[in-house]
Amino acid sequence: MKLWQKNTDVSTAVETFTVGRDPEFDLQLAPFDVLGSMAHVTMLAEVGLLNKEEVKQILTALGNIYQQTTDGSFSIQPGVEDVHSQVEMLLTERLGDAGKKIHSARSRNDQVLVDIKLFLRNEIALLVKEIQPFFELLISQSEKYKDHLLPGYTHLQLAMPSSFGLWFGAYAESLTDDMLTLQSAYKVVNKNPLGSAAGYGSSFPINRTLTTKLLGFAELNYNVVYAQMGRGKAERITAMALANVADTLAKMSMDACLYLNQNFDFISFPAELTTGSSIMPHKKNPDVFELIRSHCNRIKALPNEIMLMTTNLPSGYHRDLQLLKEHLFPAFTTLKDCIRMATLMLGNISIRTGIMEEEKYRYAFSVEEVNKLVLRGIPFRDAYKQVGMAIEEGKFTYDTSLAHVHEGSIGNLCNEQIGSMMKNTVQDFGFEKVNQAIDQLLASGGA
Amino acid sequence: MKLWQKNTDVSTAVETFTVGRDPEFDLQLAPFDVLGSMAHVTMLAEVGLLNKEEVKQILTALGNIYQQTTDGSFSIQPGVEDVHSQVEMLLTERLGDAGKKIHSARSRNDQVLVDIKLFLRNEIALLVKEIQPFFELLISQSEKYKDHLLPGYTHLQLAMPSSFGLWFGAYAESLTDDMLTLQSAYKVVNKNPLGSAAGYGSSFPINRTLTTKLLGFAELNYNVVYAQMGRGKAERITAMALANVADTLAKMSMDACLYLNQNFDFISFPAELTTGSSIMPHKKNPDVFELIRSHCNRIKALPNEIMLMTTNLPSGYHRDLQLLKEHLFPAFTTLKDCIRMATLMLGNISIRTGIMEEEKYRYAFSVEEVNKLVLRGIPFRDAYKQVGMAIEEGKFTYDTSLAHVHEGSIGNLCNEQIGSMMKNTVQDFGFEKVNQAIDQLLASGGA
Amino acid sequence: MKLWQKNTDVSTAVETFTVGRDPEFDLQLAPFDVLGSMAHVTMLAEVGLLNKEEVKQILTALGNIYQQTTDGSFSIQPGVEDVHSQVEMLLTERLGDAGKKIHSARSRNDQVLVDIKLFLRNEIALLVKEIQPFFELLISQSEKYKDHLLPGYTHLQLAMPSSFGLWFGAYAESLTDDMLTLQSAYKVVNKNPLGSAAGYGSSFPINRTLTTKLLGFAELNYNVVYAQMGRGKAERITAMALANVADTLAKMSMDACLYLNQNFDFISFPAELTTGSSIMPHKKNPDVFELIRSHCNRIKALPNEIMLMTTNLPSGYHRDLQLLKEHLFPAFTTLKDCIRMATLMLGNISIRTGIMEEEKYRYAFSVEEVNKLVLRGIPFRDAYKQVGMAIEEGKFTYDTSLAHVHEGSIGNLCNEQIGSMMKNTVQDFGFEKVNQAIDQLLASGGA
Amino acid sequence: MKLWQKNTDVSTAVETFTVGRDPEFDLQLAPFDVLGSMAHVTMLAEVGLLNKEEVKQILTALGNIYQQTTDGSFSIQPGVEDVHSQVEMLLTERLGDAGKKIHSARSRNDQVLVDIKLFLRNEIALLVKEIQPFFELLISQSEKYKDHLLPGYTHLQLAMPSSFGLWFGAYAESLTDDMLTLQSAYKVVNKNPLGSAAGYGSSFPINRTLTTKLLGFAELNYNVVYAQMGRGKAERITAMALANVADTLAKMSMDACLYLNQNFDFISFPAELTTGSSIMPHKKNPDVFELIRSHCNRIKALPNEIMLMTTNLPSGYHRDLQLLKEHLFPAFTTLKDCIRMATLMLGNISIRTGIMEEEKYRYAFSVEEVNKLVLRGIPFRDAYKQVGMAIEEGKFTYDTSLAHVHEGSIGNLCNEQIGSMMKNTVQDFGFEKVNQAIDQLLASGGA
Repeated sequence: MKLWQKNTDVSTAVETFTVGRDPEFDLQLAPFDVLGSMAHVTMLAEVGLLNKEEVKQILTALGNIYQQTTDGSFSIQPGVEDVHSQVEMLLTERLGDAGKKIHSARSRNDQVLVDIKLFLRNEIALLVKEIQPFFELLISQSEKYKDHLLPGYTHLQLAMPSSFGLWFGAYAESLTDDMLTLQSAYKVVNKNPLGSAAGYGSSFPINRTLTTKLLGFAELNYNVVYAQMGRGKAERITAMALANVADTLAKMSMDACLYLNQNFDFISFPAELTTGSSIMPHKKNPDVFELIRSHCNRIKALPNEIMLMTTNLPSGYHRDLQLLKEHLFPAFTTLKDCIRMATLMLGNISIRTGIMEEEKYRYAFSVEEVNKLVLRGIPFRDAYKQVGMAIEEGKFTYDTSLAHVHEGSIGNLCNEQIGSMMKNTVQDFGFEKVNQAIDQLLASGGA
Repeated sequence: MKLWQKNTDVSTAVETFTVGRDPEFDLQLAPFDVLGSMAHVTMLAEVGLLNKEEVKQILTALGNIYQQTTDGSFSIQPGVEDVHSQVEMLLTERLGDAGKKIHSARSRNDQVLVDIKLFLRNEIALLVKEIQPFFELLISQSEKYKDHLLPGYTHLQLAMPSSFGLWFGAYAESLTDDMLTLQSAYKVVNKNPLGSAAGYGSSFPINRTLTTKLLGFAELNYNVVYAQMGRGKAERITAMALANVADTLAKMSMDACLYLNQNFDFISFPAELTTGSSIMPHKKNPDVFELIRSHCNRIKALPNEIMLMTTNLPSGYHRDLQLLKEHLFPAFTTLKDCIRMATLMLGNISIRTGIMEEEKYRYAFSVEEVNKLVLRGIPFRDAYKQVGMAIEEGKFTYDTSLAHVHEGSIGNLCNEQIGSMMKNTVQDFGFEKVNQAIDQLLASGGA
Repeated sequence: MKLWQKNTDVSTAVETFTVGRDPEFDLQLAPFDVLGSMAHVTMLAEVGLLNKEEVKQILTALGNIYQQTTDGSFSIQPGVEDVHSQVEMLLTERLGDAGKKIHSARSRNDQVLVDIKLFLRNEIALLVKEIQPFFELLISQSEKYKDHLLPGYTHLQLAMPSSFGLWFGAYAESLTDDMLTLQSAYKVVNKNPLGSAAGYGSSFPINRTLTTKLLGFAELNYNVVYAQMGRGKAERITAMALANVADTLAKMSMDACLYLNQNFDFISFPAELTTGSSIMPHKKNPDVFELIRSHCNRIKALPNEIMLMTTNLPSGYHRDLQLLKEHLFPAFTTLKDCIRMATLMLGNISIRTGIMEEEKYRYAFSVEEVNKLVLRGIPFRDAYKQVGMAIEEGKFTYDTSLAHVHEGSIGNLCNEQIGSMMKNTVQDFGFEKVNQAIDQLLASGGA
Repeated sequence: MKLWQKNTDVSTAVETFTVGRDPEFDLQLAPFDVLGSMAHVTMLAEVGLLNKEEVKQILTALGNIYQQTTDGSFSIQPGVEDVHSQVEMLLTERLGDAGKKIHSARSRNDQVLVDIKLFLRNEIALLVKEIQPFFELLISQSEKYKDHLLPGYTHLQLAMPSSFGLWFGAYAESLTDDMLTLQSAYKVVNKNPLGSAAGYGSSFPINRTLTTKLLGFAELNYNVVYAQMGRGKAERITAMALANVADTLAKMSMDACLYLNQNFDFISFPAELTTGSSIMPHKKNPDVFELIRSHCNRIKALPNEIMLMTTNLPSGYHRDLQLLKEHLFPAFTTLKDCIRMATLMLGNISIRTGIMEEEKYRYAFSVEEVNKLVLRGIPFRDAYKQVGMAIEEGKFTYDTSLAHVHEGSIGNLCNEQIGSMMKNTVQDFGFEKVNQAIDQLLASGGA
């Protein structure tokens, strides 16, 4: 059954092609579709387009359907075009005429818009929740290993002493910046497109401010033409934020693969977390990190993919947008899996101690010796020459105890401040307010 | 003269290749390099690594050089490797030993890091300033043309009435979301990497909190390893925000090209703003919009380019990063030019009136007629059938006066609310605080 | 069971994460894996590493397994790591010790390499086969509608007369160039990596020239380190060729959506091939073309995705490569579906006749009038002015009969020559030789 | 002076914006523009649109201008819109009416199309010429160092012995596959679009087969609508081929940076080819390789950039295409520079000898020991266990002499066959035929 269908059959080939993998993704949208409908009908009653009895019945029925979408018993029946049609059909079956009325003053275009915004909002919130323990682990490993040095490289050339404290902490701090971009994505998706109908609004005297409040949105997408433009744009901006988190994980994985390599040999993992070879006992293949890296580098390709799929489309809805879901939706699961696997790996890491005591790393201390001279009053450029000369003449001496005290250095990691930045950013999302609104809306349906 | 050079000559080919186009971009960094040095030496005095007299001399000399960087008289002399070396050389020429001391406790790695952050921070601020009048124009055109209807399309098929009020307003509102991503980029770049030295900190007892304050940064990039990682990342996140603004402009340009096409014929421009053909008088080639579209679509490719150039580089500085400037820096100028040209074009647009009165657009009003029935109490699906039947039987009647009243619709554009969103976001950037800090810093050098 | 497993269990989480969606894609590789094994064991016998009896048994068993991979009865059992292990296990079950011997002188690295090359080679061949009838349709529609004019646009502005003959023919010819890039991809994948083992060759006296011949490859990937580098590269170059075909389809779909728009109204389709709206009878949503466009624009993102996943990986195998299959493999099916749908649509297209007779398109003939004057001897620039003047003074006269005779013009489409280019390119692939080799190899296993 | 200008002035801002950087790139197109004009006028004479005297004069004048374009004395005068206008103006100045006639039967659209095809064709040929000596160096270094082993890695984990012979040879062979894609790009650009005029052909009885022959093109772009579509497509396919070459260089550079790292320490370079630090004598920063890598990774972003700039543009010329030159044209110079620098570096490389004699690499020989057992008749899986057991019990013995004899292995590099593949591909380009045609055409102008 197509809502728009009259007398002609759509050829099966066309139907198969146009439906594509949509039912699969529509299932993920189902709970949000129901939430959107609950807000919509509540508002319809408020403005007099439904009576009190009707809205009560519909809300209860929607509450039941919501339950089904979360307990796995909801499905889109064969021949039903999409999640919106399925929900409407269930309502009509159960409630008759009242069910028929809920499509007043909206269109499948704004239904899917609001579904996607609610879905993305929820997924970003879940991702933030997943990032937090990973961040905490990085901070705690940074503290635990703050006294363990390893060589720092520039140009991939041995340069200066670094530490595992710095290494873990760097990736923790990286997440704080990534979080800022997640937050701007959250702000963009946390605006209400419902009521834009097919992208040009409608003559119904609807109250969009009310649905905004009911769904816990921070703002409206006011202009209805812009609300429709948000499709593709919300996805792109969210994908950009995912790409930032992914880049942090990918870079860390590259480091881990390098540090696990026998020529570096800085870290190791329990056998059950690596894959090996029964005849090459040294082999501890970092498959997990390689796959995190690969998954994350693929996620980094998403914003560009979305751009290619939406570039130069004039304003107004186009069916092209349907396919944006196919790589974006799974990216959330993938990214969360990667974070979980990174947490598992880094929680079980072993650090080789005493690395910087090896003589081969001695020149990494040369800058330290220069700085000591400077601190005794010798101009930098002169101290620099003096140590250079000593090295050339084979008279270079050094010690491996470091006295780095400034903010963010080996001896003063500032993990507390980094933790504060993260905490403040997470608070600024305002998840509680959103959760309260949704809980209240669900309560109106008895759920 | 290379700062690191000893006895061997670097082959000319290598030098030419490695220097590349850097002097060109270093000139753009020069004022920020001087600012970074002013903060650095002030701090060195504070922690006792320079005496009061020295710091005063140096600040005055830096103040003079800053003037030169802004009046165009600063240049990088042939044979001088980069802007950092040029500034240091000038100081040493003028001040002797005192000049030699300023490189204490820093590295060219953190110098360029701070230069780029200050440059990006400034460019984002300039871009925000450029967007504002364009936004105002869109809002005012939206108000001016709010009663002029044009067809709204879905699937590029005639669908429902839209208006020029909606069209202009949609792009204004689009900029408010783009601004949110510019703001997150601003937050990422507005953190201080100075003091991270070569990416591993130093044994100097420097005060990074002080330089943070002096340079007007909101925060530190605490962890020195992360500070170094910020290179490439700051550029990527900024490029993502630019891509969002660019996408808004590109989409609007696509619409404009379409609307100017003779088959649509919705808008026109004065002859001097289009290019024509002396034998095809109907031709008003929208070259400006085509080039805005093309420039902006290219800018949308930037984040991906930056990702390709930085993916899978392990932590620590790599010379690869040098080339990130080459396409990113000009993108700011290009984007600002595009905004200015779009402002010029849209400020001079003519709107064809009475478009929706043409009979060919009559069916765009069919949904209106359905809704009227619904408002009279007929269930949506039944009203839908009734109008469909009327159309099929050739009995469809309609009128072109619309009564859209809900938020963001033709009759209630909510441009004021959209204006508020923009205003609030712009205020949140906190430009004044940054400007005050920079003014104060410059004042310390007598500038 | 892992081939490399000793005493430790790999944690379930790691296993789930690392296996990922591989079994799904390995099923697609299964027939090719068996072919690779057949060639390998034939060669092992040839060089004395298997005896005649053993090889005969193994080939027969492999022939049976091949049958299973094509009739759908082959599956990878739970707990078996990959297709290679599954095949080896089946052999060992059926043949005992002989089965154990087939892994001599190879590695799963070169097995998957050869599987992927055979798979890509086969998919490119299938794609070529799919393109041909589509190309033929375009040519025949071009011939059928060669006398039907439509406006040609530049800058999306009305410019000169074009024809449906030109329009269909243009996309046919586009496919001939795309085919050239498919052919270079075919040449790259049609080289044998088998025998490169883990990427560094082996001390077995294997005969790679023989397996090359047996598998119908045109050449060897000689250097074993390069053979391994081919992973990722073969995929990238194939994806680039797919992107070219996809771009042709996407562009054609954009044209179709535009031409179907009511303001153009150049073409139409039977109701069952478009989707509609029961109350807007003019609506014939071109969903099929929108989805072709979207699918194809996504395919255009594939080469970049592959680059992001492989950039800056040093030489040698990395597990990252595993994930390249996930978006590339389905792209073949998608692209073939798109071609089939485009064939269905364009085979059922209706062309509006007499378009160029409408007065609104009259100035599109102005260049024609200029050219007529030039052909009578008036210098081009003067003729140009004369017609321009006539238009300005409202005295422009023209006729809509065209006399374009040069190669590739409205009156001389050269579809035969375009057909020849396609035919020659297809012949150059040399599919027969490949098919013969594979048939012969399968025959050796009794299949 | 604009060719299409009538009475109105184009605003200066519009002119500055629309002209952009075109004069810069038009200079690079100038010689090809003149060649196109020479072919065009020769043809015009042939079909009777110019008389013998006129064509002789014009060809001589064009011959002179061609000289100027190659000796640097040609320039585009301020106020002249583009190279086409400049050439036509010069001709009109020198020849009067005859000069006015050359624009008959063509448009600036097909002029720039043919210019770009000739330019790309020439640049691909130059690139092929640049690749050849680099390829030869790689082959000769492979031969020179064929007995020097280094560890081979999989998963970046120590795996098996490799050799510098394999390493150099792998990149040589990589270029042979890249060359195949360059060749398909060459085939695509080596087709003649001249005569397609503004993209819809013309009523002039021109002979496009003749200009095809005169310009040395292998074929025509027959269909004029397709000829116009070639813009953007030729650039994209060429960029894809460049990306393939770039990827080979980038990967090699990544290896080089890793091998130069002190933990690997496999290779070194003369001091003048690396950059250093006066106080860290171990530092030999591989800036050249880092910049090759970065430049090449940027070139890999080009195909995507071109796609973003052309996606979803309907058929027909759009001014967007103008900007495609800006990043593509310099990419040729950059890529050739990178090849030259890679040649300089690898020609001066020092290889550390005896690497595999170090005990830490001993387990890389374990597979060798397994294979020896297999060659003595022990089934692979059993031999595998036996060696594994020996390693576990500390009883592993091995020797570092290898007997790899199969095609493409350490002991049998097959560089000759790789050289043949390259030679054959280069021959297939057919450069001589093109050169002869161009020489003959130039001779007709006395050049």
